[in-house]
Amino acid sequence: MSVLESINGPDDLKRLDAGELSRLTVEIRDFLVEAVSQTGGHLGPNLGAVELTVALHRVFDSPRDRILFDTGHQAYVHKLLTGRRDFSRLRRRGGLSGYPSRAESDHDIIENSHASTALSYADGLAKAFALRGEHDRSVVAVVGDGALTGGMCWEALNNIAAGADRPVIIVVNDNGRSYSPTIGGLASHLAHLRVTRGYERALDMIKKTVPRAPVVGPVAYEALHGMKKGLKDVFQPQAMFEDLGMKYVGPIDGHDVEATEHALRRARAFGGPVIVHCITRKGYGYAPAENNEEDCMHGGGAFDPATGESVGKGGVGWTKVFAREMVDIGAERPDVVGITAAMLHPVGLAPFAEAYPDRIFDVGIAEQHAATSAAGLAMGGLHPVVAVYATFLNRAFDQVLMDVALHRQAVTFVLDRAGVTGDDGASHNGMWDLSILQIVPGMRIAVPRDGARLRELLRECLDVSDGPTALRFPKGQVIDDIEAVDRVGGMDVLARHTGSNGARVLLVAAGSMAATAVDVADRLSAQGIGVTVLDPRWVKPLDPALLDEARRHTLVAVVEDNGRVGAVGDAVARLLRDHEVDVPIRTFGIPQEFLDHASRAEIIAEIGLTSQGLARDIIETVARSGETTTTEQPAPTRE
Amino acid sequence: MSVLESINGPDDLKRLDAGELSRLTVEIRDFLVEAVSQTGGHLGPNLGAVELTVALHRVFDSPRDRILFDTGHQAYVHKLLTGRRDFSRLRRRGGLSGYPSRAESDHDIIENSHASTALSYADGLAKAFALRGEHDRSVVAVVGDGALTGGMCWEALNNIAAGADRPVIIVVNDNGRSYSPTIGGLASHLAHLRVTRGYERALDMIKKTVPRAPVVGPVAYEALHGMKKGLKDVFQPQAMFEDLGMKYVGPIDGHDVEATEHALRRARAFGGPVIVHCITRKGYGYAPAENNEEDCMHGGGAFDPATGESVGKGGVGWTKVFAREMVDIGAERPDVVGITAAMLHPVGLAPFAEAYPDRIFDVGIAEQHAATSAAGLAMGGLHPVVAVYATFLNRAFDQVLMDVALHRQAVTFVLDRAGVTGDDGASHNGMWDLSILQIVPGMRIAVPRDGARLRELLRECLDVSDGPTALRFPKGQVIDDIEAVDRVGGMDVLARHTGSNGARVLLVAAGSMAATAVDVADRLSAQGIGVTVLDPRWVKPLDPALLDEARRHTLVAVVEDNGRVGAVGDAVARLLRDHEVDVPIRTFGIPQEFLDHASRAEIIAEIGLTSQGLARDIIETVARSGETTTTEQPAPTRE
Repeated sequence: MSVLESINGPDDLKRLDAGELSRLTVEIRDFLVEAVSQTGGHLGPNLGAVELTVALHRVFDSPRDRILFDTGHQAYVHKLLTGRRDFSRLRRRGGLSGYPSRAESDHDIIENSHASTALSYADGLAKAFALRGEHDRSVVAVVGDGALTGGMCWEALNNIAAGADRPVIIVVNDNGRSYSPTIGGLASHLAHLRVTRGYERALDMIKKTVPRAPVVGPVAYEALHGMKKGLKDVFQPQAMFEDLGMKYVGPIDGHDVEATEHALRRARAFGGPVIVHCITRKGYGYAPAENNEEDCMHGGGAFDPATGESVGKGGVGWTKVFAREMVDIGAERPDVVGITAAMLHPVGLAPFAEAYPDRIFDVGIAEQHAATSAAGLAMGGLHPVVAVYATFLNRAFDQVLMDVALHRQAVTFVLDRAGVTGDDGASHNGMWDLSILQIVPGMRIAVPRDGARLRELLRECLDVSDGPTALRFPKGQVIDDIEAVDRVGGMDVLARHTGSNGARVLLVAAGSMAATAVDVADRLSAQGIGVTVLDPRWVKPLDPALLDEARRHTLVAVVEDNGRVGAVGDAVARLLRDHEVDVPIRTFGIPQEFLDHASRAEIIAEIGLTSQGLARDIIETVARSGETTTTEQPAPTRE
Repeated sequence: MSVLESINGPDDLKRLDAGELSRLTVEIRDFLVEAVSQTGGHLGPNLGAVELTVALHRVFDSPRDRILFDTGHQAYVHKLLTGRRDFSRLRRRGGLSGYPSRAESDHDIIENSHASTALSYADGLAKAFALRGEHDRSVVAVVGDGALTGGMCWEALNNIAAGADRPVIIVVNDNGRSYSPTIGGLASHLAHLRVTRGYERALDMIKKTVPRAPVVGPVAYEALHGMKKGLKDVFQPQAMFEDLGMKYVGPIDGHDVEATEHALRRARAFGGPVIVHCITRKGYGYAPAENNEEDCMHGGGAFDPATGESVGKGGVGWTKVFAREMVDIGAERPDVVGITAAMLHPVGLAPFAEAYPDRIFDVGIAEQHAATSAAGLAMGGLHPVVAVYATFLNRAFDQVLMDVALHRQAVTFVLDRAGVTGDDGASHNGMWDLSILQIVPGMRIAVPRDGARLRELLRECLDVSDGPTALRFPKGQVIDDIEAVDRVGGMDVLARHTGSNGARVLLVAAGSMAATAVDVADRLSAQGIGVTVLDPRWVKPLDPALLDEARRHTLVAVVEDNGRVGAVGDAVARLLRDHEVDVPIRTFGIPQEFLDHASRAEIIAEIGLTSQGLARDIIETVARSGETTTTEQPAPTRE
């Protein structure tokens, strides 16, 4: 039996001797590479957190002590050590979540994948334990150096530092990068801290023991097996954190279990707020990850474990269409600049950055600052493009509203991964943006249905000079272009079918739902129902021509890949009733719930956003309204 | 002519000699006390910023250099020095805004009153100037020590520090408090910085020259007239900011124009990012403000300039009803704790804090941390009440959504100043909360119509143990209780009038619109229209009994004191159409626009939310629909 197989919980871990621990870390890396190569997932961050996680679970008494993983994608090792070894359906329906999950284990606490939150939870938990007299419980927050660039961490540090008698241990897992290398003054400071005797020694050791060349087998870290201990943690006051009133311990070699344990035990014994600064390397021990310059195999799909090469399907993604168009636009428009919140590659701004290196700004994991500094850039005469995952725009709602929109600044927000993303779970789905942006006065929102429209609408966004714009598109491969059969105002008509039974459905399809809507239309038409498919292109403001279209139909159906509350469906319904166009309307979108992880296709089927599901619902609605028999009969009011 | 009257812009200021400057600062304080005593407004912060603002405009070349005031309520002196001396209608319709206003002056840049944003704007502006080759333009951000506790400042500092060649001057106006004394590790650090030779000297001087006892006349600062100069600024490296890569200058006596000018000139000459740390005293020079322990006369209504005593009307505000009930609840529920983001008094948590000092947490101007640390407190077995102004909840949207709601934590958000607040302008109106909270899965929202319901619904919120709740109420005096005439499900019926002409209106009134709705009902009834007034009490989730009520009426009208987009009106409309109840519906609320400052009553009248306006609109709708003649006729669909 392997050592790993003998670990059913943290208690089993505490019994291991040094040799077993060493074997365990090797086994864990083998396991991770093998498992994630099959399912996809966050490999690099977890390879970097093996020894640290082992040390945490040997020193602390989870779940009585609370170990909080910030961002959460580095919790695979934690799962392995707390009785969850079946990774066969990782991130798939019914399988393990790619993030901590309270449904899976009492050892899991934070499910949210948005960064920089763990310290705030820790402050709250520590305050609660203090108030309830549970003084023996430690709260441990594990946070990346990248996440420390997020403002929430500052707010939390300011509060944690004020609680001198509350045991909060902040473990900074410092690998010098989140997705991209960490930037800014903080990064420089951390780099400075690393240049100490302690870390120099750690680095030497890592250099000596980890082969840098590509290796033959699936695991490159066997050389680590015999890695010598002996690195001492260095306790020395470090100004920035000490200034805030926090004890600082470090830097520690986070790939040395013994040294890390030693530091954690001392931190625990201190009984107050402590920062433990651990230096790790993302992708550690697996050469393809270590040598991956883009993101150390941060996350992604299935891959060949021997080479790290992706085995995913090809094709051009929405992100790449955006990326290419930005490069073209950059050549024509010297005023266009790009902003990313530590995700240069994932959001498709890397080619732009390469072409125009002085016109790209990576602000760190700091969406608030991304939005407001964009307002400043716009006030200075430039047109910023803030490219973020749709779900992360939530973090800058107030800044988009007050700093950008109130000031009528021409900032363009490009929202990638909008709609159901699926396998990364509830907090990654981009199902909120169309709702929160509808609230923002003066915001204009473009929703392209295909690659051609993405390029076209991006340019239209950049032509707006008197206020903010947003452009949103989904994850994955771009679909074939769908040409319009007609144009009404600024809207595209994608299909018109004359019906035979009097019912006439106006199907308004937002963005990526266009292809589905065209298919729905075919199905309705086959039933004798007249149907028009309208792509509004811009979902805020809505084109008033929509009113005339609505008046010519007996039912309006709106379909969107966003939460149903407050989004396009509600906007169309409001437009109609504000103009007393009381045609019945039905709105289809994502139910306003947190969705469990599963594939996008599974979720889409489950929530009825397939063409079959939508066609069925609409046909039933038409049937119930009795409109299949007469043409001019208004919808009945029910008594 | 006074010196002040000779100042029509910054250039005039630059010509003054030391004696004239000294007279000017006295005149400005006289002017401020006199003007604000008539109109109300932010007195304390402006009294503390007189010399600093004079120095800023003497050193920098506004508007070519950009001077950004964070939070903005301390910009009165800036207005005076940039040609705006008519304060007679300050914060009133057509008069000067209480915040910077780009419509008023090219010298004004940030209109948003939400704290901690200025450094991010500054970073963006400095980047734009660098890219456009405008290297001679300085960007100056004036930020309070309280605002520095906000995470955005950290995000911005991290970026500003990285731009070693971009001239950004950050002036920290450190008075040790925002509303309340600033808290946390940062505050301790700033306090430590103050204990230096430079500041000790400044303090001595202030002590010697400012009388501490109450004075007879309206101005206490005449003694300052002869205040000696001579304090040298101290250039010495200070760890925390230096660690980030910023030059640090200070601490400076911010009430010494010459010393402050000297520091600013050196900062400007540096040509890179610099922090200038100015020590000021809130309310400086006006004894009633200096001696006001609660908030140094931070802001408020009209007052007697001789005493500082409020001359406002009495009565009990919504805030006080909440404050009292919290004290009662605190005695019964040891698990209830309070959280404020640096606004202990304004949100009504001060009495609770006094009664239960270990159960109150002031987290600084840090709404994100307030929400997420509340989730941590709830996970630790407590029930936190996060009390904030409604408009500031926007800053924690992602935290409410992901950290609280996704984790189904029982945190209660109490939103004061919800709806139109008016005189503080666009960014203070609490017109967004009902929209953003409708998006949050599992959130329950209570909207009390009067004091009795506030107490009752607060307790109902605290009885919810499986998810978040929110309670929102307006600014100002609580209205007389309105008793229900009937109960339908969990909803109160406030009036039922049988009509004579067949039309039957269901009037759904959210919270504070109840009294208006009852009056509207009387007006409709006088026209022969049947009408039911329903107070849903909870606007999320809506009570399904609303459907049956809707079916018994020919028109549904929803009235709310929130932006119309995505709020209660949209929610009722969605509920109806999801159940195929196609009764026509009209929704009334605040138009989704940024509202210019004016009194609440003026705005309410302008946007048609008076009983006259609403009754007229509803009567016209009924008339157009033709429903005054027959009873069972369904609403027509228009062709």
